[in-house]
Amino acid sequence: MDRLAEAVQRRGNPVCVGLDPRYEQLPAVLRTSEHAAPVDRAEGYRAFCQGIVDVVAPLVPVVKPQVAFFEQLGPPGMQALAEVVQYAAARGLLVILDAKRNDIGSTASAYADAWLGTGRRSTFAGDALTVSPYLGADSLEPFVQTAEERDAGVFILVKTSNPGGGWLQDLVAEGQAVFHHVGKMVDSLAEQSAGACGYGYVGAVVGATHPQQLAELRQAMPHTWFLVPGYGSQGGTATDVAAAFDDRGFGAVVNNSRGIIFAHDRPDYRDKFASGQWQDAVRAATLAMIDDLRAGTPAGKLMPR
Amino acid sequence: MDRLAEAVQRRGNPVCVGLDPRYEQLPAVLRTSEHAAPVDRAEGYRAFCQGIVDVVAPLVPVVKPQVAFFEQLGPPGMQALAEVVQYAAARGLLVILDAKRNDIGSTASAYADAWLGTGRRSTFAGDALTVSPYLGADSLEPFVQTAEERDAGVFILVKTSNPGGGWLQDLVAEGQAVFHHVGKMVDSLAEQSAGACGYGYVGAVVGATHPQQLAELRQAMPHTWFLVPGYGSQGGTATDVAAAFDDRGFGAVVNNSRGIIFAHDRPDYRDKFASGQWQDAVRAATLAMIDDLRAGTPAGKLMPR
Repeated sequence: MDRLAEAVQRRGNPVCVGLDPRYEQLPAVLRTSEHAAPVDRAEGYRAFCQGIVDVVAPLVPVVKPQVAFFEQLGPPGMQALAEVVQYAAARGLLVILDAKRNDIGSTASAYADAWLGTGRRSTFAGDALTVSPYLGADSLEPFVQTAEERDAGVFILVKTSNPGGGWLQDLVAEGQAVFHHVGKMVDSLAEQSAGACGYGYVGAVVGATHPQQLAELRQAMPHTWFLVPGYGSQGGTATDVAAAFDDRGFGAVVNNSRGIIFAHDRPDYRDKFASGQWQDAVRAATLAMIDDLRAGTPAGKLMPR
Repeated sequence: MDRLAEAVQRRGNPVCVGLDPRYEQLPAVLRTSEHAAPVDRAEGYRAFCQGIVDVVAPLVPVVKPQVAFFEQLGPPGMQALAEVVQYAAARGLLVILDAKRNDIGSTASAYADAWLGTGRRSTFAGDALTVSPYLGADSLEPFVQTAEERDAGVFILVKTSNPGGGWLQDLVAEGQAVFHHVGKMVDSLAEQSAGACGYGYVGAVVGATHPQQLAELRQAMPHTWFLVPGYGSQGGTATDVAAAFDDRGFGAVVNNSRGIIFAHDRPDYRDKFASGQWQDAVRAATLAMIDDLRAGTPAGKLMPR
């Protein structure tokens, strides 16, 4: 995570912009018709996401494409995704691919090979990938190994932001919740690869919608960088995410998807920006989030620009 | 799962052939060079998997492409996968897409839309999809809903076949293992959609490598069709999988990947089939597995042809 720490330091904020294109919500100027073919939708997604990258590349350290929406369009969608990743990387952004993959043995290695590795090392050339832990520690090893070989990262789901996430994750076994068991294992994987910044190649997904558990996990997982979803549309606030950071302002990136990329359609922005000015809305929402995180977190927790 | 029950009855066996192409293991006649570009590898995967389909379509009810290996090749791999699925469906096979997807809300719906739905309803046109449960019951609902709308199926990971699967799945909470909690929830989802065969749209992945737990789960999950990996190369035997079936021989399909598709390279087959006869090796291995399941399971558990 040294590269991530450097990027956060360079931009002076820990904002991750989630690229979750949904065709019906694209700015009208980027849509053709509601019956558009997958190849035309994919072209809309490419133009939309590259347009967002143009705006946010000078402002934030990292973007997080949600693979599901590209996959929904089939092969043309995957082609658009690959182009978005390349475009973002060329403009200095790190790219976390949110695919929540998981499998065992050589199958896990195939997923890791597909997604991890900048330059020409993997097809989709991501800097990091999200991974689900249900299959156990041996299923995570191929992802961690590939990440180490390629100076990339793996973010393992620990405590997710959805209302029903606790159904399995909060079950108490041997005196602690399942998500604490997973967190402990993830931190031991992270510790084995800790770099100059103190964090390893292995990170954790911990939702902003559970601030108490977020604080507990920060204490319990000192070697693990957090990817924090749930800020904004899902209800998480700057105060909620403050506990995710260490005293240097490192240790976490906070994701916002809808609140930024569809800012042109937000009730509080809709009247200020015309459809053709959707990129101005993205810029305003990104700057507002950066300010909000700075104001809502204790002094020193977020580095000044 | 009525369509699956009908297919099993029509073929008189519950064999699922796993399509897990790995370039280095393809028959020599289908490879160009070890430096082949993704588009050439994808062409090899397409020819290989369609060649397997030609052999097994008259013999077995279902095939299971492993999405990771196609994804590893990027967009051309996904195009090859779509063509393999179409080809298999046109020859009367049901197709379970092994992608182990999971996410929340509209993102889960996007995955379900991508993978589920024969005909022109989804991009990849599968009959069923494997799904991981770590994100909780609310993350599974969009998959189940799409499956019901499209007469398709969802197989949720309950007890996996890998050695380390127990690390999380066997944790005991509230008096029972995590996998039993998941199994109970899966069976209640299955019960809500039970069709003529007594099984619902929701199935479970339960490994052959844990015969004791397989028997327990069969008892505890009467409405749930099982997809059983781990037979053959991973060590599961016909005796191990017998407990997965109900008294009519329904209730489970048993997957074999490497032992069938790479039969030309099995130590016990290598001397019998030349590289150009790899399809004969696939046929022999498929018939041997059908015979093995028949011989190894109690009378009545597998219907006669």
